[in-house]
Amino acid sequence: MSQSAAVTGRVDPLAGLPRTVAWSREGGGRVEILDQTLLPLERRVVCCERVEQVWEAIRRLRVRGAPAIGVAAAFGMCVGTREARSGSTQAFLERVAEVRTYLDSARPTAVNLAWATRRVAEGARRMEGGSAQRWEAMLEEAHAISREDAAMCRRIGEVGAELIPDGARVLTHCNAGVLATAGLGTALAAIYVAHEQGRRVRVYADETRPLLQGARLTAYELSAAGIDVRVLCDGAAAWLMRRGEVDLVIVGADRIAANGDSANKIGTYGVAVAARQHGIPFYVAAPSSTFDLSLASGEAIPIEERGAEELRELGGRRLICEGAGVWNPAFDVTPVSFIAGIVTERGLLKPLTAENIAGFFC
Amino acid sequence: MSQSAAVTGRVDPLAGLPRTVAWSREGGGRVEILDQTLLPLERRVVCCERVEQVWEAIRRLRVRGAPAIGVAAAFGMCVGTREARSGSTQAFLERVAEVRTYLDSARPTAVNLAWATRRVAEGARRMEGGSAQRWEAMLEEAHAISREDAAMCRRIGEVGAELIPDGARVLTHCNAGVLATAGLGTALAAIYVAHEQGRRVRVYADETRPLLQGARLTAYELSAAGIDVRVLCDGAAAWLMRRGEVDLVIVGADRIAANGDSANKIGTYGVAVAARQHGIPFYVAAPSSTFDLSLASGEAIPIEERGAEELRELGGRRLICEGAGVWNPAFDVTPVSFIAGIVTERGLLKPLTAENIAGFFC
Repeated sequence: MSQSAAVTGRVDPLAGLPRTVAWSREGGGRVEILDQTLLPLERRVVCCERVEQVWEAIRRLRVRGAPAIGVAAAFGMCVGTREARSGSTQAFLERVAEVRTYLDSARPTAVNLAWATRRVAEGARRMEGGSAQRWEAMLEEAHAISREDAAMCRRIGEVGAELIPDGARVLTHCNAGVLATAGLGTALAAIYVAHEQGRRVRVYADETRPLLQGARLTAYELSAAGIDVRVLCDGAAAWLMRRGEVDLVIVGADRIAANGDSANKIGTYGVAVAARQHGIPFYVAAPSSTFDLSLASGEAIPIEERGAEELRELGGRRLICEGAGVWNPAFDVTPVSFIAGIVTERGLLKPLTAENIAGFFC
Repeated sequence: MSQSAAVTGRVDPLAGLPRTVAWSREGGGRVEILDQTLLPLERRVVCCERVEQVWEAIRRLRVRGAPAIGVAAAFGMCVGTREARSGSTQAFLERVAEVRTYLDSARPTAVNLAWATRRVAEGARRMEGGSAQRWEAMLEEAHAISREDAAMCRRIGEVGAELIPDGARVLTHCNAGVLATAGLGTALAAIYVAHEQGRRVRVYADETRPLLQGARLTAYELSAAGIDVRVLCDGAAAWLMRRGEVDLVIVGADRIAANGDSANKIGTYGVAVAARQHGIPFYVAAPSSTFDLSLASGEAIPIEERGAEELRELGGRRLICEGAGVWNPAFDVTPVSFIAGIVTERGLLKPLTAENIAGFFC
């Protein structure tokens, strides 16, 4: 967050929160990662002085959210090549390639991870000079990725905040906030900026089964920022809307097709259906890079099905008997017809007509 | 379940399941209650030889579901007055009144509980003769309550089964089955009877946060009966419907207003909204006694808000930080316009026009 403050000159609304991912000069240079698997019980920062620790933190979801994973991996490249600085350029570049392959294997499907490690590796190659200078170029590239992400979040927040009037009651699903990025988040950035601008906002956070990111993470970061946040069961959202207690919905996105269909955490589509039923605008907030223009519609977005144990067990206790099956898709797709607009760092995309979307990417 | 088999002469689809509540002659007469708080991990039957154990089982939700609570309390009246059989009639009737007040206090808002204890107490008063004869009359009344409930469930099942064609994929929410009644349940009775009649049924069971009755109880009892059941997160139901994998929805009800608006476990309304969006019929199954004709519409149904700890903690672990609030309504109300029909022991109420409902109760 210090980055976003530096970029914009504004007050940091999250001063009370440990940083999701940060570089520290201590111990010769290390990545500090807030362990999200322990939240909200414990705020433990994992200090990674070896690349294996970064790999483990990504693998075990101690850091999650595409942008945050990318930043962690970018700094992880620097940790993993630190000791090669004293060797030859050739040996250094070989080590860079090795560390990159290793980190990419932590979560093979995370597009942002491979993108960030490639960018940092290219920084080393591009730089002329010895190993030490190339390493400094890598570190600068990693900082740039982090700064750019923070600036993009800030911009999404500024665009999104215009949708949030004073006294608004906003419902969100999952966690698209500080803990998922190197900045203010995407969906939650809009709320942080509205709050910062002095408007009163109440946030309803779906707990977001099965992994409970809403209960554990969204509630944690919003309340740390002094924002009124209330957690509810996913199934209660429609009833809250019927009672007239939701003014708008804003969620993040994992992937957006060329026509605007948006994939996000399972449960998002049900929220969109309920929002339409009650005439409540439903917004998606995401970097424009989330659009995958190679996909004509949401039907082409692959949906990962995750392990049954996420539903079968809770806190080590078995919930579902042996004989019963489990259906556990990780994401769902909200068709563009349910979406009022998409908040990006390049502005608000609204209405979501084919013409409008095409024009946005020209 | 043995009762329902006795009443109808049909094969019991639940032979593999311990009975929810049963009377046993052992130990001079006791109530045996399947401890639902331990399901599905452990099938432990609590043998209540003292009325305090029955009170505790009701209070701690070892037995839940309005009809099952009523039956447990009815037999509890017999347990609590057993030793007074050797005394005077006056002393016996005083003890009956005392036990009734005591049992009613276990869950003061459970209408069925007070109804059952009153009915059993009246059985003792009405009977002429000594304490022992009066006690036998009470036991017969308790058995009658249990038998009548089982017969009513069976009839609801027969009416509801006609809605379920071969190969149907049925979604349900919470637990309105064997574990909530002294018979086949209400919503699940329709599935049991369709299964018994040889039709293939696949059931999708919402896990039903916060107390997970769908995951723990519905999945357990359906799979014990050999029915294909799959558990999903509440938020995933709308996405399942969009994929075309649900043919109908059937749920229970806690209270139905005179116009057909139906209160049921929180999350039910969201399911109804999603069902309408996808053109899927949404049915409610409940005894006709669930109608509260003193309430013109669902707006008059009081909604209990339950403790925040149901969301804040899971398996003893804190999920939501101190600073965040929680909104935890126990029920929601599905307006009659979302309901295709109400399955009762007196037939299928459909369509739910004011005229039709009025005619049903004439």
